[in-house]
Amino acid sequence: MRRIQTIAELRETVQAKRRAGIEIGLVPTMGALHDGHASLIRRAAAECGYVVVSIFVNPTQFGPGEDFERYPRKADADAALAEACGADAVFLPSVDDMYPGEPRTTVHVEQVTARLCGASRPGHFDGVATVVAKLLNLVQPDRAYFGLKDAQQVAVVRQMTLDLNLPVRIVPCETVREPDGLALSSRNVYLSAAERRQATILWEALEAAQRQLEQAPQITAAELEALLRGTIGRAPLAELEYAEVLRFPELEPPVGALDSAAAESDLIVALAVRFGGTRLIDNRVFQRKEATLACTER
Amino acid sequence: MRRIQTIAELRETVQAKRRAGIEIGLVPTMGALHDGHASLIRRAAAECGYVVVSIFVNPTQFGPGEDFERYPRKADADAALAEACGADAVFLPSVDDMYPGEPRTTVHVEQVTARLCGASRPGHFDGVATVVAKLLNLVQPDRAYFGLKDAQQVAVVRQMTLDLNLPVRIVPCETVREPDGLALSSRNVYLSAAERRQATILWEALEAAQRQLEQAPQITAAELEALLRGTIGRAPLAELEYAEVLRFPELEPPVGALDSAAAESDLIVALAVRFGGTRLIDNRVFQRKEATLACTER
Repeated sequence: MRRIQTIAELRETVQAKRRAGIEIGLVPTMGALHDGHASLIRRAAAECGYVVVSIFVNPTQFGPGEDFERYPRKADADAALAEACGADAVFLPSVDDMYPGEPRTTVHVEQVTARLCGASRPGHFDGVATVVAKLLNLVQPDRAYFGLKDAQQVAVVRQMTLDLNLPVRIVPCETVREPDGLALSSRNVYLSAAERRQATILWEALEAAQRQLEQAPQITAAELEALLRGTIGRAPLAELEYAEVLRFPELEPPVGALDSAAAESDLIVALAVRFGGTRLIDNRVFQRKEATLACTER
Repeated sequence: MRRIQTIAELRETVQAKRRAGIEIGLVPTMGALHDGHASLIRRAAAECGYVVVSIFVNPTQFGPGEDFERYPRKADADAALAEACGADAVFLPSVDDMYPGEPRTTVHVEQVTARLCGASRPGHFDGVATVVAKLLNLVQPDRAYFGLKDAQQVAVVRQMTLDLNLPVRIVPCETVREPDGLALSSRNVYLSAAERRQATILWEALEAAQRQLEQAPQITAAELEALLRGTIGRAPLAELEYAEVLRFPELEPPVGALDSAAAESDLIVALAVRFGGTRLIDNRVFQRKEATLACTER
């Protein structure tokens, strides 16, 4: 497996593969890879002839006071995991490589960024959309793989790809979880033992939401959100940031009873919960149609 | 020459050329082609194996009350001219092709859009940057050609291309003029006979600025701008919108005397003048270094 540090080497490498007619897959990550990333890389390796895993902790998607500085970094272990999962190259640019000079350009996606993490992390999705656009332009992959734990990120990248006619297929992949239901996240390492035990409350809330939707689908979004808040409230260390039920991937509020709203589009139940200084997110998408997230044609 | 109406046909066509190893050139236009466009197309044909001319009057770069509705449209004559100049394809999408559904994504370039037309046409360069990003992603050209009459547009596209790592070389091309100095523009057809006669005042002001810079290069930007205003004021039908002297392509004000400011970067003298309902722009770039506008490497 190749370790690529510079943009020039990256362009040269992928251009040679493209000219040889090999399909290229990109798995954009911030490193600190876990089994969730592993599942993305394995899927990319199964579907593409050449897989690039980018590892870049992107400063522009962190707000002031967020965890950019302490975000876990472990390039050697990441490279070993990527290789074991079938990656052909890891791309490890520096901040100066990605943002030389004085960058002036922002890709802004509105509406799908208005709620959830977009509301609580101003500017976050401008940073995400812009860096993903850059990575897509650098690698020019046929397919790019994103985990659905960051469902709003998937929705934003999908919208950007459609709107800017980016010639790539966005492939959303299922969230990978611990045996007790906690979604894998590079930020789970921040949790104390007591916080870690209580962090399963996100999973429990999503399970409760699913039972509720199965048993009484005529409930409204507000009623379901109240149920979520009640469940999260049972964990003493949990501080709820948001619990929302929205249409997916539009991320707009459903109108009326969820069984009628659900007929028109998929639903997402999305949570953000703080445990001390650690912020965890999780979600579940209901009645996903296979085609919902299929993206631009080539 | 091929007339391409749909995005699917465009992608298929250029993909076949790219796979055959043929270099692709793009000349993005709003149609109503004149000899300025012709010079771009001829240069693209000389430098690239396959040349696409896009013809699209982009609604998102027109402000309320601007001339989107009456902007001249003449697709058949445009196609004939493009073919005569060596184009291999014209791409003529509809507004619905380019903006299906509800587009949510904007490419915003700051700083270089703050002055000149960016100040007098709010949102204009968001529309330009976004549609150019779309066209670049659709055609994936090796080179894209832009006329320097729209020098700020060139600066914006260059900045976007660098910042987003778009794999294209932006090729700025010299302004083409009438024998009396008036820069060619699709909007010149709006001018009455009397306005057309007086419209040479832009050229005269640029000539006066050049003489001044040659004779007394230690002048300041403010002094040169006063000279420009004075010259434009001699045309009774002319209403000055802006007359500015800036560093190019940064489009920031030079500090101190222009001979010292010019040593660090190129200078642009830029004008926007209204004749009745018609808005004309023109400019001259001084001490252009060949490398100033060289863009991203492939």
